[in-house]
Amino acid sequence: MIKNIRGIVFDAYGTLFDVNSVQAKCDEIYPGEGERISSLWRQKQLEYSWLYSLMGRYTDFWKITDDALKFTLKELKLEATDQIRHSILDEYLMLKPYAEVPEAIRSLQSHEMAILSNGSSEMLHRVVENSGLSGFFKSVISVDDVRIFKPSMKVYELGPARLGIPKEEVLFISSNSWDASGAKAFGFKVCWINRFKRTFDELGLNPDLTISSLDELSDKLKH
Amino acid sequence: MIKNIRGIVFDAYGTLFDVNSVQAKCDEIYPGEGERISSLWRQKQLEYSWLYSLMGRYTDFWKITDDALKFTLKELKLEATDQIRHSILDEYLMLKPYAEVPEAIRSLQSHEMAILSNGSSEMLHRVVENSGLSGFFKSVISVDDVRIFKPSMKVYELGPARLGIPKEEVLFISSNSWDASGAKAFGFKVCWINRFKRTFDELGLNPDLTISSLDELSDKLKH
Repeated sequence: MIKNIRGIVFDAYGTLFDVNSVQAKCDEIYPGEGERISSLWRQKQLEYSWLYSLMGRYTDFWKITDDALKFTLKELKLEATDQIRHSILDEYLMLKPYAEVPEAIRSLQSHEMAILSNGSSEMLHRVVENSGLSGFFKSVISVDDVRIFKPSMKVYELGPARLGIPKEEVLFISSNSWDASGAKAFGFKVCWINRFKRTFDELGLNPDLTISSLDELSDKLKH
Repeated sequence: MIKNIRGIVFDAYGTLFDVNSVQAKCDEIYPGEGERISSLWRQKQLEYSWLYSLMGRYTDFWKITDDALKFTLKELKLEATDQIRHSILDEYLMLKPYAEVPEAIRSLQSHEMAILSNGSSEMLHRVVENSGLSGFFKSVISVDDVRIFKPSMKVYELGPARLGIPKEEVLFISSNSWDASGAKAFGFKVCWINRFKRTFDELGLNPDLTISSLDELSDKLKH
């Protein structure tokens, strides 16, 4: 049970939006390789976001996502024309929300809600528009505005600033364990969605609440 | 061929010192699991170093290495007492140089040399002392001094500062592709040692020279 929450800030990829369709698309082009591709691709996408941030060389998430895919296909010795690569990349613009998400978002609308994501502004707006959920969010915030990626504190600061609600009264929700830890370090209340029985990272920064899908949340928020 | 190099700065783990013995130790304790453990462990060790750096919460590499191992054993559902975990960790203090390294270092001694590593001061001094190579290095530099990890530019700045040689006349050598890219972003001349036919990261920052073992280097340095 978490008390006194007025605002909710959601991570996007893997939290609201199901990235599994990317794996299906990879399997369609490279039969049997979808899981290996999508797993290494995701790892490299995150690595590159952290590396560029630490180097002080911000590069937007669309380019990072493309470069991570290039690396992945090279590493796995899979041939790809630019056209094939772009057709895989475009999946990122068409991700669907997880099945329980639309109804769960509706049930939370007495709170001010925002999305705060590593995605570039364009990537985010495309995916949120497609989902039909944009009306529920006061703000869709990209790290583009601060030119550094999560888990920099500069990113999390955008949440309270845009919602106009102090961080102590904001619940941050992510399926990414490291993102939940970063949000905790910043001072949000934090909820980790663990849909796939993953192991939480050992960063000494643990969530206030763990749920296995978003529809469990509204009952846990006490006004 | 690289000209006008007066100083050489080496990365430590995986570049001068062979981390493979860690895998052997893991295999001894968990037969058949050595590769899975050491691969996920290394990935998490790096991830945690980047995540803590971005959060602005520096934590020394010894604790990070331990926490990454804890995560790995949990994730792979392997039981471990503190004593077993510590016996694996201690391998990090006893790493041996790669076979060609001692002779190659001797052949380069007309240059000022230093080691610049993510390792904590104590970890580094232990491993360099054990190798019998400490006499060849003017400086063994830990990121402890700047409390952030590679590839922050603050780390690479320590190299020219300690050697008293401008970065344009320093060759930075690493087997870690992302570290070579970070050093290139800083402005070093960069050599990547690719001993295991790996794929270089797609960060748009490529090395000036690639070799497959350190004994190839001295012939490539033109005075």
